[in-house]
Amino acid sequence: MSLDAHETPVGAVKAALAELGPIFGERLLTSAAARAHYGAAESWLPAAPPDAVLLLHDTAEVSQALAICHRHGAPVIPFGAGSSIEGQVLAPQGGITLDLSGMDRVLAVHAEDMDCIVQCGTTRQRLNEELRDCGLFFPVDLGAHATLGGMASTRASGTTTVRYGSMRELVLGLAVVLPDGQVIRTGGRARKSASGYDLTHLFVGAEGTLGVITELTLRLFGIPAAAQSLLCSFAELNAATGCVVEALQFGLGVSRIELADELQMRAINAYSGTDLPESPTLWVEITGSDPAVAHDVALFRDLAEGAGASRIELAQTPEDAAKLWRIRHDALYATRALRPGVTGLSTDVCVPLSRLPECIAAIKAEIAGTGLVAPLVGHVGDGNFHLVLLFDASDPAELARISARLVELALAMEGTATGEHGVGLGKKDYMAAEHGPALELMRRLKRAVDPRGIMNPGKIFDL
Amino acid sequence: MSLDAHETPVGAVKAALAELGPIFGERLLTSAAARAHYGAAESWLPAAPPDAVLLLHDTAEVSQALAICHRHGAPVIPFGAGSSIEGQVLAPQGGITLDLSGMDRVLAVHAEDMDCIVQCGTTRQRLNEELRDCGLFFPVDLGAHATLGGMASTRASGTTTVRYGSMRELVLGLAVVLPDGQVIRTGGRARKSASGYDLTHLFVGAEGTLGVITELTLRLFGIPAAAQSLLCSFAELNAATGCVVEALQFGLGVSRIELADELQMRAINAYSGTDLPESPTLWVEITGSDPAVAHDVALFRDLAEGAGASRIELAQTPEDAAKLWRIRHDALYATRALRPGVTGLSTDVCVPLSRLPECIAAIKAEIAGTGLVAPLVGHVGDGNFHLVLLFDASDPAELARISARLVELALAMEGTATGEHGVGLGKKDYMAAEHGPALELMRRLKRAVDPRGIMNPGKIFDL
Repeated sequence: MSLDAHETPVGAVKAALAELGPIFGERLLTSAAARAHYGAAESWLPAAPPDAVLLLHDTAEVSQALAICHRHGAPVIPFGAGSSIEGQVLAPQGGITLDLSGMDRVLAVHAEDMDCIVQCGTTRQRLNEELRDCGLFFPVDLGAHATLGGMASTRASGTTTVRYGSMRELVLGLAVVLPDGQVIRTGGRARKSASGYDLTHLFVGAEGTLGVITELTLRLFGIPAAAQSLLCSFAELNAATGCVVEALQFGLGVSRIELADELQMRAINAYSGTDLPESPTLWVEITGSDPAVAHDVALFRDLAEGAGASRIELAQTPEDAAKLWRIRHDALYATRALRPGVTGLSTDVCVPLSRLPECIAAIKAEIAGTGLVAPLVGHVGDGNFHLVLLFDASDPAELARISARLVELALAMEGTATGEHGVGLGKKDYMAAEHGPALELMRRLKRAVDPRGIMNPGKIFDL
Repeated sequence: MSLDAHETPVGAVKAALAELGPIFGERLLTSAAARAHYGAAESWLPAAPPDAVLLLHDTAEVSQALAICHRHGAPVIPFGAGSSIEGQVLAPQGGITLDLSGMDRVLAVHAEDMDCIVQCGTTRQRLNEELRDCGLFFPVDLGAHATLGGMASTRASGTTTVRYGSMRELVLGLAVVLPDGQVIRTGGRARKSASGYDLTHLFVGAEGTLGVITELTLRLFGIPAAAQSLLCSFAELNAATGCVVEALQFGLGVSRIELADELQMRAINAYSGTDLPESPTLWVEITGSDPAVAHDVALFRDLAEGAGASRIELAQTPEDAAKLWRIRHDALYATRALRPGVTGLSTDVCVPLSRLPECIAAIKAEIAGTGLVAPLVGHVGDGNFHLVLLFDASDPAELARISARLVELALAMEGTATGEHGVGLGKKDYMAAEHGPALELMRRLKRAVDPRGIMNPGKIFDL
């Protein structure tokens, strides 16, 4: 076992491990292989292994572990599926990673109330399997096989956010272990409450810097009776976004509305063997009752044609629809296949929908002068899009410049640096520009909740 | 600068007023009449006037006033329409009330993005008048002519929360003046963001104890193309709530679903001159496209009949519908007419929908043995209901006992003490039971954000 991370209070970690070892036995991992596994990033960020990893089973164990780490001042990094892409689970200051993926029980499903309670390590796929028989589902559907605790901690969203909301809207309550090991419960099963400060939202999106989310109460929804998918091609991006604006103003039952640009479509054709028009394209799913879907699909077609759609493809069967959406979900693989072997940095700014074409045009103009290849897909109904910047080791400065410029553009258009990936280590530099003096209030809250600074140190902002 | 150790609260207010007077002139009110007006409660709570009232026009003025009050340690009470009913605007420790009702400008409407920015003193009625021409509306529709800043501060909701959410879901961003006068902006116009701590939700529901909300960015919605209202009578409360559960699971386009009990219906018949069945009754509004509404109304009728509805009345014209809803909105006046001259305390617990019949039956059993008259109306889709406890000066202890017992029942059923009225002074006693150790975290946040304790002191909890 090596405790050589320079920035770690080595003694603190050592002392904590000496206490944790006898309690957790083989569930305390200190091998180089384990540390390397947990300290590797799902992104462009360099690896940063923890000093040790603890596999935990329930809230009481998390409490016990935190109390020990807190007493000694040892850094703690909560870890779910490890799928966050801004370095949220890295251990740049060393410390002890808490692997919560074993806390994967669905504790209760209340079908009548359309809510459920899960342990934090439950994946959304696992939850939806459990729910299938009662006709309910949990809608947040990001790409990764993430855990619900991790999704709450990064305030995750996905393709259905335009209809159902993100983790911000769908978490009703939490069990949280505070840095000193104390367990609190926030919110609850009531659909609404005006009772005191909203602690639930304090922890949702805090990326594990204020405590460890161990249980979640989540809103559920009935599976719609009918669904219809469309693929619409446009000559211009403005036409596609104009169509989206109208569809949302009409209140159509849009459950997903996704955008890809011409470069992304070219990548998709090459990767998926399709022959789709290589121009701005919308994937649309409309759900509801049979007559509502029929009405809304007809109206959407009218809107798309009015906006100048050059081609509208209606999925004729559920298999057709599944194929359309598979193509969309494979977009990232298609992108990577454009330049095999190079790394991709996925940006995720979010702007008011009306500014989207302007934002995209401006960043494309900047990219045009570089060697970067950057296809675009986006959750256009939310004004959120991903440019995947493909780069090799030779042009990191260019990459950083484009990435920063995109954030600058988004902020100037009243948007945000990150619509769904979170801050972690990768976006810390943008926090001052985005939040201004509010960033200092965030720091004040951090100091109040975690005065010893043990929780996921170095993430979101520096103190 | 720190509070002079010898400066008393009275001295602090005096010193602050001496600075504020020359700046604000006639907009600083200190007459007995003004103080009495601002210190009177819209509820059963005793009056508690401030030492002075300041009429403010914009964020910069709020900042200036707070900086002065903060320097001297003078208590500050934010005031919108004064319609909160748990004493949120009372001044039990004296201090200076900030009347923000003059800050009533709609600063921007972004129709394409379906959002707007308003000053905190704008009422929801005023906002909806401004929005009418662009086919959009803001849905939170509580009974009072409240300001949007006050509604955010108390995390207000209303009859449409079942479809659109409460202030918790619909506030995208805020301008907030912190206790020391510093202005911050939280959230923003992006539909979603994973960028740092969720400061917006920290202030929504904080009842002015952490700072003053001066501007709000709000989500808007398109006015639905079609709407249909129904009134359904049931022999048993369980049958009515069972029908609601099914309608929500089917995802019907229910925009409002309201419940009244037999006593409330008797009061309504007496007050409104109607001849409705005096049994548990649902008001339902279904909105969407024409075919969606037709489908959902037919399905709702089937569900209601299946649940044993004894009578279903479908509004045949918009005027009929308006009449149905007028009767619902007059419920409180109908209640008061039951015992003219006596006071009413409106409870507002919220429980998981499946527990609603049990909760209502249990509290009715307790009330049966008392002299209290207590009709019930509720936002049944959210599990939130109001018992209006009518009482005269002779039975305050009985009233307090029933009120406390109802909260105890709601908490035992995983509910909350307050679904929409907030805590203020009236519900402080329930906070420890509802939040357990999380209450101490709320106190810690309060101390971190408002270390001098000047913001609306004595509300929500004591320090």
